[in-house]
Amino acid sequence: MSQRVHNFSAGPAALPVEVLEQVRDELLDFRGTGASIIEASHRGKAYDRLHHEAMEDLATLLGFGAEHSVIFMGGGARSQFALVAMNLLGDGWGGYVNTGRWSDTAIGEAGKVGEVREIWSSKDAGFDHVPGADAFPSAAGAAYLHSTSNNTVAGTEILYDPSPEDAGATLVCDMSSDLLSRKVDVGRYGLIYAGAQKNLGPAGVTLVIARADVLERSRAAGLPAVFTYADQAAKRSLLNTPPVFPIYVVGLVLKRLLALGGLAATEALARNKSDMVYSAIDTSAGFYSGHAQRDSRSRMNVTFKTPSADLDDSFVEGAADAGLVGLKGHRSVGGLRASIYNSVPRASVETLVEYMQEFQRTHG
Amino acid sequence: MSQRVHNFSAGPAALPVEVLEQVRDELLDFRGTGASIIEASHRGKAYDRLHHEAMEDLATLLGFGAEHSVIFMGGGARSQFALVAMNLLGDGWGGYVNTGRWSDTAIGEAGKVGEVREIWSSKDAGFDHVPGADAFPSAAGAAYLHSTSNNTVAGTEILYDPSPEDAGATLVCDMSSDLLSRKVDVGRYGLIYAGAQKNLGPAGVTLVIARADVLERSRAAGLPAVFTYADQAAKRSLLNTPPVFPIYVVGLVLKRLLALGGLAATEALARNKSDMVYSAIDTSAGFYSGHAQRDSRSRMNVTFKTPSADLDDSFVEGAADAGLVGLKGHRSVGGLRASIYNSVPRASVETLVEYMQEFQRTHG
Repeated sequence: MSQRVHNFSAGPAALPVEVLEQVRDELLDFRGTGASIIEASHRGKAYDRLHHEAMEDLATLLGFGAEHSVIFMGGGARSQFALVAMNLLGDGWGGYVNTGRWSDTAIGEAGKVGEVREIWSSKDAGFDHVPGADAFPSAAGAAYLHSTSNNTVAGTEILYDPSPEDAGATLVCDMSSDLLSRKVDVGRYGLIYAGAQKNLGPAGVTLVIARADVLERSRAAGLPAVFTYADQAAKRSLLNTPPVFPIYVVGLVLKRLLALGGLAATEALARNKSDMVYSAIDTSAGFYSGHAQRDSRSRMNVTFKTPSADLDDSFVEGAADAGLVGLKGHRSVGGLRASIYNSVPRASVETLVEYMQEFQRTHG
Repeated sequence: MSQRVHNFSAGPAALPVEVLEQVRDELLDFRGTGASIIEASHRGKAYDRLHHEAMEDLATLLGFGAEHSVIFMGGGARSQFALVAMNLLGDGWGGYVNTGRWSDTAIGEAGKVGEVREIWSSKDAGFDHVPGADAFPSAAGAAYLHSTSNNTVAGTEILYDPSPEDAGATLVCDMSSDLLSRKVDVGRYGLIYAGAQKNLGPAGVTLVIARADVLERSRAAGLPAVFTYADQAAKRSLLNTPPVFPIYVVGLVLKRLLALGGLAATEALARNKSDMVYSAIDTSAGFYSGHAQRDSRSRMNVTFKTPSADLDDSFVEGAADAGLVGLKGHRSVGGLRASIYNSVPRASVETLVEYMQEFQRTHG
């Protein structure tokens, strides 16, 4: 086997090597069943157990109770851009906080379903900031208020839980790229959703956490059951065959996070890792410049650039030669981006910082 | 490792052991990239190549050209029950051939979207037959005519491709449980869809094969892009992050089918395997009785029973002790069911037939 690279991909992204090893070791014979977990009936004991344990472990990690239900769905977070509106808009309107490329896309998709209103935007500023904790917008009268907690392209993050009372509407949040990287007050949200392929596991499953009142509202939409949050929750996401392998791996990642000390530990690690990269930027005497305003900086995606696009390219090429991959900025903005989700080891970040310093010495 | 069982699960179902071994062997380091394929960016070279090769290999196997596009979606075939109607109904109506539990469910889901008409049904006969090749119903004036080629619960199968001219409408077919088990005249269908977890690979991806005119019609629905067939096809199913692992494994299964001789070989094997089980039923002097009428018998799911429900239970228990699993009939109908999809080895079917004969000797 060649040596494993330091993986800074924005998603699908690095997974814990221990999880990959376990998947490999039990791939042909899942825990004595004589078959792979991907060959097992989703109605059988082996799968049923890990399906429900994944739900329970998620609730344990995030500290929520029976008021919220976990739903596993396919189609990616982008499907939720549509389904949130289809389930909850009714004849009303949805308020949107536009903090980046994906919230912008969510607005576009929901706008094909019903009325949406952008009530806050940093688009004209290149999405370089998010609303401060004292300035989260309100949307009184809205069917819901949608925000995106972490913006992977711009590298900004809302690191607090807004007040639903101040917002005046049910809070819906796309946490695709930072769920499980910090403690969250789930009770404040009517609906949280997250594609798995950043912090949680492989691509192919989207986690939805829905409060009972939101489930109840979803019934009124009269959608096919497969798209109705209430029907999916009532069937514990076994209305039809779920994406077995992605859920299985997410379950392994959740158990690892619990073993490592839960969200207090992951939050401390996320802060520590991102501080290391931001410090390298801030102490570079301007050689590296960050895209996000300081008080909006993401702990998950550090976006920065060198003095020129040519140097950015050299940075990416040299990094790849040194075993650091996935550092090219999103195609829509260019520059550089280090995605340092939960499963990116601290050692990878240390190697990155050394490389940044060395690159500056030789190209600065 | 314990010995691998003989897996007759109705889905998720048996996969080729060679495919599982390859997945295992390259799980931590995908072909020298230094990362797992489930950690790789879906925009990177490694994934991009297998994504497009899977599309091309599917077209090669089924023998269709540029007139049809392959789309990979999440959410399972059940999502397609809804999306077919959402994309294609418009102000018209959809005709449905009701041959089993899943077509019945498709009617229910589509009925929440718009007008559906059941134009043929064998429900009152316990879904024990499908329309004969000379009696496939017509639905002139319908937005489409939907059928289900193989019925996993009842164990019946439509083993011919209906004529769209005779049907008088665009043909839409759910081939979730028999796609790639026989040659299909894809040109006759406007849309084919199939959940992967029977003949194709693991759960988590649904394959859609859509003709150009159907894609064009889907644009008019004005749905969010993620649910619009035309938008998904235009982006080659990379509109958002696809279900990487399921597509990867489907791709491996497709390459294996090509290496084994394509659909002529799989069709011969499917006929041979199902003939063995039906022969065991038909030569049992009535100890075993099949559910499906003879000319409607499925090559994928053989449904049968012993003289009593108690004996059925004994059959399942004894089979499990002998390493044959997944033989319990669907919870909605009881009895026994042997699902013998493409990847179930002939040796497993031989073992099953021996067990059936031995069980009859000891319990007949």
